[in-house]
Amino acid sequence: MKKNNRKDAIIVLSGGLDSVTLLHDKQDEIALAVTFDYGSNHNAREIACARRHCAALGIEHLVIPLHFIKEYFHSSLIEGAEAIPEGSYDEENMKSTVVPFRNGIMLSVACGLAESRGLSRVMLANHSGDHTIYPDCRPDFIREMSGAMRAGTFNGVTIDAPYTLITKADIVRRGAELGVVYGDTYSCYKGGEKHCGKCGTCEERREAFREAGITDPTTYETE
Amino acid sequence: MKKNNRKDAIIVLSGGLDSVTLLHDKQDEIALAVTFDYGSNHNAREIACARRHCAALGIEHLVIPLHFIKEYFHSSLIEGAEAIPEGSYDEENMKSTVVPFRNGIMLSVACGLAESRGLSRVMLANHSGDHTIYPDCRPDFIREMSGAMRAGTFNGVTIDAPYTLITKADIVRRGAELGVVYGDTYSCYKGGEKHCGKCGTCEERREAFREAGITDPTTYETE
Repeated sequence: MKKNNRKDAIIVLSGGLDSVTLLHDKQDEIALAVTFDYGSNHNAREIACARRHCAALGIEHLVIPLHFIKEYFHSSLIEGAEAIPEGSYDEENMKSTVVPFRNGIMLSVACGLAESRGLSRVMLANHSGDHTIYPDCRPDFIREMSGAMRAGTFNGVTIDAPYTLITKADIVRRGAELGVVYGDTYSCYKGGEKHCGKCGTCEERREAFREAGITDPTTYETE
Repeated sequence: MKKNNRKDAIIVLSGGLDSVTLLHDKQDEIALAVTFDYGSNHNAREIACARRHCAALGIEHLVIPLHFIKEYFHSSLIEGAEAIPEGSYDEENMKSTVVPFRNGIMLSVACGLAESRGLSRVMLANHSGDHTIYPDCRPDFIREMSGAMRAGTFNGVTIDAPYTLITKADIVRRGAELGVVYGDTYSCYKGGEKHCGKCGTCEERREAFREAGITDPTTYETE
């Protein structure tokens, strides 16, 4: 990956494993991190993680509420822990966790913020494991959305999604090299104090550490 | 323009002349109208107009607050009446009224709502007079954004922007045929009780009626 020494990027930072790794990975290029509070079951825990990582790296951090999503959109991810299906990440029932066009909305807001601040890139930590379930994580979407952002801004803002074609295990390996404290990232879609260990994202998280050959620091309820 | 008899569209409705005309023009195809409150000088007056037109036509209407725009974005449009430049619409100084990627943000939210409701189109009333000033009104942007929305949703949501290549005068002619009550639409960027008659949008509004040969029902402060 090419090295860019200007701090000309804003990152969409959830506080999960993927985006926290990207934050550390590209910290020299990131001027601003933005986390969205859309009322998901796990939002509060994610936001707290995002805040701590930004503070540790000295990166400015904004939390932007998108309350209309919980009010008007349909998704099990915003309907309480009981609504979250258990089982592996690639099962059909994980479709219920899709928040319609969530990445489109977050990228658009980040794009407007970038244009307002004179920044030229929006970083997103989507990866290849997301493609099956989430249409707004796929390479096609990223390319088209980047084109729309470029066409719709004076500054020609584009998307930088360096993990699009790699796996979550690759991300964990990269983060381990960088010394990312994964105990301070949160993934579980149920949003409990401990990771439930049974929902699709917990399964995916466990598998990524296993596949990467890295010790998983997470405490799961199932253990 | 082709006739579509399914109510499969959501419209981005500001309450201004253009989108109110489109609301009346395509009322048979519109299941839902959405107005965004982003804290602009003229938002409250626009929203009131949008609400009345939807009520008259029996179309469901949502108002979605985007308070982060006023808090974090830069634009004279959200900085009070004094910040709005006077003079013609195509002057360089109208650039200060651009809200970065506003259409991208509104289209993304409308796209998520459409996907949540099983609707397949998002209508936008951008027109050819907007192209010079607003990058996110140009045909290129509309095409690319529509592609991103299609790629990023299960339902393949797209943009329907039937006024992209016509002028505001054409829109006024169309609205007059339809009997749209233009006295109940609001354009002025200063947001006062009466239209100021001096800002770029007031100039543009006046010119559109003049060019269309339709009596302008607006009371301007300058008269």
